[in-house]
Amino acid sequence: MSTPAERLQQLFSPGEFASAIDEAAAQLKAHFEQVLSGQGPVQNWSHPLEKIERARQRLDEAPVDALPTLDRIRSLIEECLQNSQNLHHSHYIGHQVPGPLPLAGVFDAIGTITNQVMAVYEMGPWATAMERALIERLGGVIGLPKGEFAGLITSGGSIANLTALLTARNVVHGDSWKEGMAALTHPPVLLVQEDAHYCIARSAGILGMGTNQVIRIGLDDQRRMCPKALEAELASLSSRGIPVTAVVACACATPIGAFDPLDEIADLCERYGVWFHVDAAHGAAAAFSEKYRHLVQGLGRADSLICDAHKMMHVPALCAFVFYKQAKHRFAAFQQDAPYLFDPSAPGMADFDCGLMTMECTKRAASFGLWGVWSTYGPGVFADLVDATFGLAVEAWQLIESQVDFEAPYRPQCNILVYRYLPLGADISGANDMNREIRRRLIESGDFYVSQTTIGGVAYLRMTVINPLTTIETIAHLIEKIRQISQAVSASVSA
Amino acid sequence: MSTPAERLQQLFSPGEFASAIDEAAAQLKAHFEQVLSGQGPVQNWSHPLEKIERARQRLDEAPVDALPTLDRIRSLIEECLQNSQNLHHSHYIGHQVPGPLPLAGVFDAIGTITNQVMAVYEMGPWATAMERALIERLGGVIGLPKGEFAGLITSGGSIANLTALLTARNVVHGDSWKEGMAALTHPPVLLVQEDAHYCIARSAGILGMGTNQVIRIGLDDQRRMCPKALEAELASLSSRGIPVTAVVACACATPIGAFDPLDEIADLCERYGVWFHVDAAHGAAAAFSEKYRHLVQGLGRADSLICDAHKMMHVPALCAFVFYKQAKHRFAAFQQDAPYLFDPSAPGMADFDCGLMTMECTKRAASFGLWGVWSTYGPGVFADLVDATFGLAVEAWQLIESQVDFEAPYRPQCNILVYRYLPLGADISGANDMNREIRRRLIESGDFYVSQTTIGGVAYLRMTVINPLTTIETIAHLIEKIRQISQAVSASVSA
Repeated sequence: MSTPAERLQQLFSPGEFASAIDEAAAQLKAHFEQVLSGQGPVQNWSHPLEKIERARQRLDEAPVDALPTLDRIRSLIEECLQNSQNLHHSHYIGHQVPGPLPLAGVFDAIGTITNQVMAVYEMGPWATAMERALIERLGGVIGLPKGEFAGLITSGGSIANLTALLTARNVVHGDSWKEGMAALTHPPVLLVQEDAHYCIARSAGILGMGTNQVIRIGLDDQRRMCPKALEAELASLSSRGIPVTAVVACACATPIGAFDPLDEIADLCERYGVWFHVDAAHGAAAAFSEKYRHLVQGLGRADSLICDAHKMMHVPALCAFVFYKQAKHRFAAFQQDAPYLFDPSAPGMADFDCGLMTMECTKRAASFGLWGVWSTYGPGVFADLVDATFGLAVEAWQLIESQVDFEAPYRPQCNILVYRYLPLGADISGANDMNREIRRRLIESGDFYVSQTTIGGVAYLRMTVINPLTTIETIAHLIEKIRQISQAVSASVSA
Repeated sequence: MSTPAERLQQLFSPGEFASAIDEAAAQLKAHFEQVLSGQGPVQNWSHPLEKIERARQRLDEAPVDALPTLDRIRSLIEECLQNSQNLHHSHYIGHQVPGPLPLAGVFDAIGTITNQVMAVYEMGPWATAMERALIERLGGVIGLPKGEFAGLITSGGSIANLTALLTARNVVHGDSWKEGMAALTHPPVLLVQEDAHYCIARSAGILGMGTNQVIRIGLDDQRRMCPKALEAELASLSSRGIPVTAVVACACATPIGAFDPLDEIADLCERYGVWFHVDAAHGAAAAFSEKYRHLVQGLGRADSLICDAHKMMHVPALCAFVFYKQAKHRFAAFQQDAPYLFDPSAPGMADFDCGLMTMECTKRAASFGLWGVWSTYGPGVFADLVDATFGLAVEAWQLIESQVDFEAPYRPQCNILVYRYLPLGADISGANDMNREIRRRLIESGDFYVSQTTIGGVAYLRMTVINPLTTIETIAHLIEKIRQISQAVSASVSA
C-alpha cells in the first residue's frame, strides 16, 4: 500500500509530464495537418445528450479501465479532438471567435501548464510584466493619450464591459458603491446603441440600475448610432434632470458589424459631460490597419473602451482589455481590504497588483499568447489579419449579392456579413424558417459552420470571415451547399 | 511583395505549429525536470519596473530582430520560463493556487491550442459535454440532491460568488433585475462570515446593494461563524422587517482556513427562510476524502455554493463551479435577448447553451484539465491531494509550534496555516514589521514563496501546503531560513 503522498509523487514527476506532452503534441500535429488543409468536417455533430453521455462514461470508467495509463491518455485526447469544434477549418466562418494563430496557442499553453496567475505582482511577475507592456502598446495603437491612460486584462468582453460600466457608475454616482443604488436621488439611465451586445443591458441588471433604465438610441440605415437621435435624447434628459451613467457606442455592433461615428458621439458626450464608453471588442484591432483605421477614428477619446484580443488579434480565449483614458479611474471599479494580498510593508507594489482593478481575484495569465505572437511577428501580423479578413468579406458580399437567389442587404463594414437564401417566387412568410433550417442542417452536416441573426423580424444567415484560410472559393462552395440543402428541405416538406 | 493572405497562410501552416510545439515541449520538459526536483529558485525576483521594461523591449524589437524566427521563438519561451513563478517547486507554499497536476496542464493546453469556447452548445460541443458531466459528478460528491441541482463553470471564485449572489438577489428581490435596487421598498442586507473573502463585500458593491449593507457575523475562537451570533442577527432583522439577500458562510475562510458549521447555519436559514450561500472555493474538495469529509457536512444543503477546481483539485486556473441546489434557479441570474445566439428553431437546445447562465458570453472551455485527470486517474486522486496536504499542514503546525521562537496560534483545519517569528524577548511592537520584512526577503531570495495575513492587527506569515512535493523537511528548512533572515534584518537595522 502506497501513501497518498507517494502516489502523488508519481503524478508530479517529470516523466509523467514528458509522456503526456509528447502524446498531446503528436496528436495535435496530426490534427492540424488535417484541419488546416480543410479536410474532414468542421465538427462531428451529435446531439448534446449523446455527447454528455459519452463524457460521463469516460469519467465513470476511470480508473478501473484495463488499459495502461498512456494508452488511456491517448484515447482521451483522441476523444477531445474528435468531438471538438475545428475553428481552424477554412469552412468555419461563424462567430467572432477565431482559430487562433497556432503560435499564440503554444505560448498560451506555456502559461497554462506552468499555471501563471495574477492578482498580486509577486504571484505572476512575468504575467504582470507582459500584461502591462501590452496595455501600453495596444493603447498606443488605439490612440489613447500617451502617458495618461491605464488598462487591464479580464475574462472576456462581457466582463470587460461590466467592469468599465461599474467604473462609470462609481465615478458618476459617487455613493453607489458604499450606499447602493437605492441611495441615489434619481435613478440614472444608460444610453445604448440599439444593436449593442446583450451584455450591455445585462450590465444594467447586474449593477442594480435595472434593465428598464436602458435607453436604446436609434440607428441610421447602416445600423450605426444616429448622432441626431443621441443629441435629442441627451438634451431631453438634461432638461428633465435625469442623470446619465454612460453613453455606450459600438465598434462594431455584433449583428452586421456596424461602426458608430465615434468622433461625433465623443463631441456630444463632451458637450453634455457624459461618460463615453465604447464596446470595441471586435473592431479596435482595425487601428492596426492603414486601410481600415478610419473605422475607429475617435476611439481614443472614449473614457473607457474594451478590446478582445481573442477576436481580431487571433489569440486563444479569453484575453479582453479594458482601457481608461485617464489612469486615475483604474481603481474606481472596486475598493477592498485584503490584508493577505496587499502588503502594507511595500505600498508602492500595489500599483502592480492587478487584483485591485479586475473582477477576478486569482486571474489567469491571459497575455502569453498575445505577447508571444506580437514579440515574434511584430504588430504587422494584426494589420494583415484585419486587411485579409475585412477584404474577403466585401468580396463575399459581392459574390452573394450577385446571385439571383440570395439577398445581402448590407455592404460589410468589416468582416461580418448577413445574407439569406431567397429564391425568386419563394414563400416570403416561410423564409425565416427556411434559413434557420438551412443553417441547422449546414452545421449538423459538418460541412460549414455559420451563425445567424434576426434584424427587424427577418432571419439572416451570418458569417464572420475570421479564418485567413477561407477564400472566395469557400464562399462559392457555401452558396452551392445552401442551394442543395434548400432543395432537400423543400423535398422533405413536400414528401 | 506577398499579400496579407499569403503571409498568413504561412503562419497558419502545420509546419509553423509543429516547430513551435516541439520547441515548447522540449523547454517545458527541461523546466519540469528542474522545478519538480526542487532545484533552482521558486522565482527569479526582480522589481516590476525591470520586468515590465524587459517585456516591452521584446515586444518592441520584433520583427526587425536579426535572428531567424525559430531562434526567436526559442528565446521568447526561455524568457517566459525564466521570469515566471514556479508553482511546482516544493518551496512554493503560498496562496491557494497550486502547481497543477502536469497532466491537467496538458489537457488544458489542448483546449487552448484548438481554442474551444462556449456560450452556445454548437460552438463548444465537447466543452459543453465535459462541463455538464463534471457538474453532475462533482455535485454528487458534494452531496447536492441527486437529480435536482444544476451548475456552471466560470472564470474564478470571485465571479462565481458574484454570479450566485446575483441569483440570490434576483430570486429574493423579484424586481431588482428590471427595476433596479432603487425600486425596492427596503434596502436589503447581506450577512457574511467576518473573515469572508473580499469578493463577497465587493459583490454587494457591484450589485448595487452597497457595501455598507454588509453585516459581518462574529466568529468563535477558531474563526468559524458563530451560529448564536447569526441567529441573533436574523431575529433582529426579522423583527425590524429588514430583508436579507443571503447568508454567506465559508468552507473555508481564507485567513486561517476556518470551516463554518454548515449544518447549523443551514438550519437557521431554513427557519428564517433566507437564501444560504457557501463560498467553498477552497474546501469543497474535502468531500472527496473520507478523513476530511466531515468539514463540509451540510454543504449540499446550500441554495448556492461555489467550488474552485483550480484550488484543491489541482487543475490550471480558472475553473470555478457554481452550484444551485434547485435547478430552477440556473437561469435566474440573467435574462437577455440575443437572436444570433439562441435559436428559435431549436428551442430545446438552449438548455445546453451555458451563456444563459454565465457572466461570460464567449467562455473559455475550462473543463479540459479536470475532465482529463478525472478520466485518467479517477476521483481518488482528489482524495489523495486533500489527504496529503491537509495532513502535512498539521505536521507543519506541530513542528512550528514546538519551536521556542515561533508562534502558530491555530491548529490547521485544512492545509492553511498562520504563524509568526517571535523570539523570546523580541520587541512585540516591532513584530509585525519584522515578519513582513522576513517575508519580503524570503520571496525576493527565491528560496521560498509564502503568503501573509493580518488578524486582529497582528501580522502573520501564512502558508498553504498545496504542493504534494513539499515535505516536513521543507518546513524545517523554512524555519531555519526565517531565523537567518531575521538575524540579517536585525543586523541591517543595527548597522
